[in-house]
Amino acid sequence: MVPQWIIEKKRDGGVLSDADIRGFVDGFTAGAIPDYQMAALAMAVFFRGMTPDETAALTDAMMRSGDMLSFDGWPRPTADKHSTGGIGDKISLILAPLAASAGMAVPMISGRGLGLTGGTLDKLETIPGFDTRLAAGAFRDAVARAGCAIIGQTDRLAPADRKLYALRDVTGTVPSIPLITASIMSKKLAEGAATLVFDVKCGRGAFMRTPEQARALAASLLGVGRALGRNMAALVTDMDQPLGRAVGNALEVREAVETLRGGGPGDVRTLTLALAARMGRLAGIYPDDAAAARELAARLDDGRALQAFRDMVATQGGDTRVADDPDAVLPRAAVTVDLPAAADGWVAAVDAEAIGRAVLQLGAGRRRSDDAIDPAAGVDRLVQCGDRVVRGAPLMRLHAAAPALVEAVRATALNAVTISPTPVPRPPLILDGGGE
Amino acid sequence: MVPQWIIEKKRDGGVLSDADIRGFVDGFTAGAIPDYQMAALAMAVFFRGMTPDETAALTDAMMRSGDMLSFDGWPRPTADKHSTGGIGDKISLILAPLAASAGMAVPMISGRGLGLTGGTLDKLETIPGFDTRLAAGAFRDAVARAGCAIIGQTDRLAPADRKLYALRDVTGTVPSIPLITASIMSKKLAEGAATLVFDVKCGRGAFMRTPEQARALAASLLGVGRALGRNMAALVTDMDQPLGRAVGNALEVREAVETLRGGGPGDVRTLTLALAARMGRLAGIYPDDAAAARELAARLDDGRALQAFRDMVATQGGDTRVADDPDAVLPRAAVTVDLPAAADGWVAAVDAEAIGRAVLQLGAGRRRSDDAIDPAAGVDRLVQCGDRVVRGAPLMRLHAAAPALVEAVRATALNAVTISPTPVPRPPLILDGGGE
Repeated sequence: MVPQWIIEKKRDGGVLSDADIRGFVDGFTAGAIPDYQMAALAMAVFFRGMTPDETAALTDAMMRSGDMLSFDGWPRPTADKHSTGGIGDKISLILAPLAASAGMAVPMISGRGLGLTGGTLDKLETIPGFDTRLAAGAFRDAVARAGCAIIGQTDRLAPADRKLYALRDVTGTVPSIPLITASIMSKKLAEGAATLVFDVKCGRGAFMRTPEQARALAASLLGVGRALGRNMAALVTDMDQPLGRAVGNALEVREAVETLRGGGPGDVRTLTLALAARMGRLAGIYPDDAAAARELAARLDDGRALQAFRDMVATQGGDTRVADDPDAVLPRAAVTVDLPAAADGWVAAVDAEAIGRAVLQLGAGRRRSDDAIDPAAGVDRLVQCGDRVVRGAPLMRLHAAAPALVEAVRATALNAVTISPTPVPRPPLILDGGGE
Repeated sequence: MVPQWIIEKKRDGGVLSDADIRGFVDGFTAGAIPDYQMAALAMAVFFRGMTPDETAALTDAMMRSGDMLSFDGWPRPTADKHSTGGIGDKISLILAPLAASAGMAVPMISGRGLGLTGGTLDKLETIPGFDTRLAAGAFRDAVARAGCAIIGQTDRLAPADRKLYALRDVTGTVPSIPLITASIMSKKLAEGAATLVFDVKCGRGAFMRTPEQARALAASLLGVGRALGRNMAALVTDMDQPLGRAVGNALEVREAVETLRGGGPGDVRTLTLALAARMGRLAGIYPDDAAAARELAARLDDGRALQAFRDMVATQGGDTRVADDPDAVLPRAAVTVDLPAAADGWVAAVDAEAIGRAVLQLGAGRRRSDDAIDPAAGVDRLVQCGDRVVRGAPLMRLHAAAPALVEAVRATALNAVTISPTPVPRPPLILDGGGE
């Protein structure tokens, strides 16, 4: 196995064998194949793509590069959800306890925010005491006790992915569907859940800008899931406008708690139920999606999901008052400013990317992975497409540590909202829900 | 200047600015831009290509990465030739002294053989005492004294090229016309000759397999020459069959001396005169190519070119008897074996690549850059396309250190020659002589 022959094979449009890919990944992980050869291969993959078999082999090799969790023999079916990332996406905070309340075990390993995309760990850590750094044994215990737990990635899970991702980030090889697929799937498969549901985001606030790109990624994820023997589904959902009415860490926790109490924005509730229903059916708990959605909705409405959330927070050391009186425990911004509408009309668009940029500038996000974040900063009470607005009434409320931060983003935030003089229908939330 | 933005720009088909390219090359040479980013950029260039302006900027930046020789103010016009490499190409050994005899100064920096391609330095070093490792000052003195000198590349000439070439070699990014152009031209331009003539080889024994590829490289070289202000020409010449009738280091020196004495194979003489005539006309010594070829042919026939060769050998410490009695000083192989024709007919093809491979296996070449070579090994008395052959008469003679080496290549060497029962015309030697 000469590494440059494998690079040349891919460069010239050939199909790599399982042995080619495994040898390359193993050599790269061990340091025998230098970064420059992996960078050249990644760029060749960017241009030539990979077949489903190649992508599955790459995923499998990366998954096996480190520790693998196993829940074989557990009494509950294991299931997890992964989103490709968007603005205001707090679904995991609601879905994990909801699924746990319905009898699934949800061992969720999540990430931190970077750039415009928020991170589930940053949101959870706004709850005083909440610990996302459990070791493998404590993580399993927490899932066994509460039915779900959400922690950060350890160094020992899919180390090939961490090494490759860092390299892709500085070599212009991030936007490649096979490489994205292997990166996502290698980590998720190593977590050991038998059922995986993916929420592939699509639009201005997502990595995949067009439905075609998002469907291609969904198909690639499903192909690998099939090849490697997991129960899988992939939904393609809208990320042209933010999800829900709050963007920012503590503000999103508050919105998640509202949803767990049976309220919350319609799109957040709808998407949570769609994803959880699919998990529940694939995990064998419900006979069909419609029955699953009905039964799960009842769990949001009658407090069973909220109790599971309380259990998760307690198990991970957090202040459980967050479930009953979020304002009493979550951090609050020193400055809040409402931005008023300049005209009467209907909301035609809320640019998720612009809102994401504004929230980043308000202090809620990170430009670099070692930046500190302001847990209280962000936007809430945000209008959504189709909403009626009245001149002078607020389009959103900005939260920040200082007035200057608000002034710096005022124009960006206002320009993110487009107002039409005539009524606008609500855009579809789930663009493609069929992929399994 | 963020390196990954430049990689992404090229990846997405954009045109890099002069500042982008210069910054990237300077950063790479200084070690501030790591190999993996250069590898990714090189692979993106492989797929996206470069405009003539980008290629010129890359060449210029690489040329300026190290020392630059200058012959400004010299009484003689400086001129040099570069071949892209082929099997049996001993033209430099004849052309440098021929051009020197006609009044040009030829400061030639040449290479060693690797893989199937022989190297001018390896050939010259079969002459006892010949020193190809002159420092810059001694090199200039030698050119001033003998009119020409041929040495190896120093570490200080275009170091960016040496670093980039080593990286390309192991990252599948060698076959890219802009990168090949910049590699060749950065070194040749740094040598300081005002006139440069390129012999772009084309065919089975060359890097460029098709006339289209070879013409594209010739056009790219000429574009950079124009952009950077040199007198340039590029000929595209045949390398489907070996050049001349001898392949191997000492065997080629013998054939070069024959040609310098007015004899030698017709193709070797013709190509030497075509290249030297172009150099002489572009350097201002001759009014047109036809007059130049006539005048230069006379120098081969009357011993003036041979005297210049003798001067060069003497200046570089070699045994000048090589010019008068090569057999007396050149190394000779212990074993010589003639390979007979299996049938009567005409030679329809001599596969240069197969002959190159056979000669490599006989010990005349290097698989890796630190391999030792056998200076006496190789092939001579090789038939050429169009030759009449008679069953049982030799198609070629193999030279090696041991009989086992000959037996190992016998089939390869015989299969390299295709015999037709009907007459075959000689193929054209110069496919495209017009490019300036």
